[in-house]
Amino acid sequence: MMNYEQVTTSYVDAPNYPWIAFAPYSDEIFVKALKADPISGTFVTLLKAPGNAVLPTHHHCGIVIVYTIKGRWKYREHAWTAEEGSVVYETAASTHTPEGACDGDVITLNIQVGDSIYLDDKGTVLAIENWKTMLQRHLDFHKAKGLVPFDITSFRDQGSPL
Amino acid sequence: MMNYEQVTTSYVDAPNYPWIAFAPYSDEIFVKALKADPISGTFVTLLKAPGNAVLPTHHHCGIVIVYTIKGRWKYREHAWTAEEGSVVYETAASTHTPEGACDGDVITLNIQVGDSIYLDDKGTVLAIENWKTMLQRHLDFHKAKGLVPFDITSFRDQGSPL
Amino acid sequence: MMNYEQVTTSYVDAPNYPWIAFAPYSDEIFVKALKADPISGTFVTLLKAPGNAVLPTHHHCGIVIVYTIKGRWKYREHAWTAEEGSVVYETAASTHTPEGACDGDVITLNIQVGDSIYLDDKGTVLAIENWKTMLQRHLDFHKAKGLVPFDITSFRDQGSPL
Amino acid sequence: MMNYEQVTTSYVDAPNYPWIAFAPYSDEIFVKALKADPISGTFVTLLKAPGNAVLPTHHHCGIVIVYTIKGRWKYREHAWTAEEGSVVYETAASTHTPEGACDGDVITLNIQVGDSIYLDDKGTVLAIENWKTMLQRHLDFHKAKGLVPFDITSFRDQGSPL
Repeated sequence: MMNYEQVTTSYVDAPNYPWIAFAPYSDEIFVKALKADPISGTFVTLLKAPGNAVLPTHHHCGIVIVYTIKGRWKYREHAWTAEEGSVVYETAASTHTPEGACDGDVITLNIQVGDSIYLDDKGTVLAIENWKTMLQRHLDFHKAKGLVPFDITSFRDQGSPL
Repeated sequence: MMNYEQVTTSYVDAPNYPWIAFAPYSDEIFVKALKADPISGTFVTLLKAPGNAVLPTHHHCGIVIVYTIKGRWKYREHAWTAEEGSVVYETAASTHTPEGACDGDVITLNIQVGDSIYLDDKGTVLAIENWKTMLQRHLDFHKAKGLVPFDITSFRDQGSPL
Repeated sequence: MMNYEQVTTSYVDAPNYPWIAFAPYSDEIFVKALKADPISGTFVTLLKAPGNAVLPTHHHCGIVIVYTIKGRWKYREHAWTAEEGSVVYETAASTHTPEGACDGDVITLNIQVGDSIYLDDKGTVLAIENWKTMLQRHLDFHKAKGLVPFDITSFRDQGSPL
Repeated sequence: MMNYEQVTTSYVDAPNYPWIAFAPYSDEIFVKALKADPISGTFVTLLKAPGNAVLPTHHHCGIVIVYTIKGRWKYREHAWTAEEGSVVYETAASTHTPEGACDGDVITLNIQVGDSIYLDDKGTVLAIENWKTMLQRHLDFHKAKGLVPFDITSFRDQGSPL
């Protein structure tokens, strides 16, 4: 079978995907790893964080599009605060420090191309996050629970694997 | 000023953007044109349609990522029904016929790369939709109301233009 | 095996790939279908045309990057002539009519995202070209010769398949 | 003027662009910074290196497409050697150590999306290269010579700026 015969529009039953702790950054922040394209490095996640959380400063290699499902948050580097229902379109090689700006949780949908590079105060690289690290978190989560993980890098017509 | 000096992460205050009739396809279906990258042809919209609406069959040139904010809908070509909170990842050169599958409205967030080509029953091209046609709808809407349209193709740090 | 385990950097031994007639447009124009990403619709081709050839007007859905390996050519819509060694960066939803501008052949390397829509003088759609039509040409060529085609949509580490 | 009105297909007269030393990695390796899209982070360069050069190991965030114009080279991580006229399609989050494999120079055309992260033997990040560092090299080169740099991030129809 040729590779293209395994590729079709893919449905992701996101509400039934597990929230996975965004280790090692926080045990209060959670992600859902929804889909990853291993060729282009485009990947889709949900992120849930307390409304007073601060994430480390990071640099995005490619574009990132963030839709805010719930709550309010901001980037320390920009004047605006992202409201529920808003869209943030982040351009390549931008640097951001996210912080919550509400009571309750912030939940965002994130479409990312390529890596995020986490930096400390002096600009030293702390960690690199991308489709591979999100996939690893997904595989580790299922292994720890004795579950067989479904393949978030597949574009077969699998319906809902859950 | 060089072009790159005008490019930064952009905030889109989507809840305050106008719903624009998705002419000439329907006067019951509405779109919000949120942001368009005129270089790569990536663009972001919201779509609102009655839960019993059917859209014409169309072919997507590039990827499309659809997040369902409200309601349920399906593609005639696939077995699954997209639920609230789900993600559909559409691969390039796929063909789809969307139809609502709920009472009330369907609202989706759509990230698209490139054109959608609308086809009739015989595969004849009826129309082409892309970032330029969405932009034109946005410009026409504002002109008809005597309003100055803000620039959805800009990546300046404009805060909310509304 | 998960899909990502089949994806790695891929080498394409382009000099040994066959020139395939660019039917039905011309029997004097040839393409090599080198690699196609069936998820994003990005694909890589070589094109060889006589220096006095004219191709139909077409609209590009996504970006196209053209490197001129040999010869000179131009777009009727632009003042410049593309020289050997030059790069043309075409933005999404642009429309072009290519014509050769030299003696001998023009050879170009083309990286394309999404479809090209071929139009007649009145703007009616004549044909749509994309990674699927290039793949089909590649499959048909090998079938007609009784050869087994290699998979240009694969990203396995296959070395040179020829 | 809206941003989209400044965006059109762009011609790059690459043969007349200057070779710029690929500092600080080597004074024997040169690059031409041809075009950079500051929204998506896609950029186009030429690279010229001696046939016995070795570049540091690096990780690519997005896809990279390499066309070999002259010479032979390989990645230490793969069995194949890239010949003149070949195409290498690198997938996102891949890691490579390039080395020349010929007498004379290697010259490649490189289309890259996002950053390259240079690593030492222990995987520590040495440097990050992307459209911004290539642009900076281009600006520094022209400033050092007392020349006004043209804008490689512009998509206006500028013809050849040289």
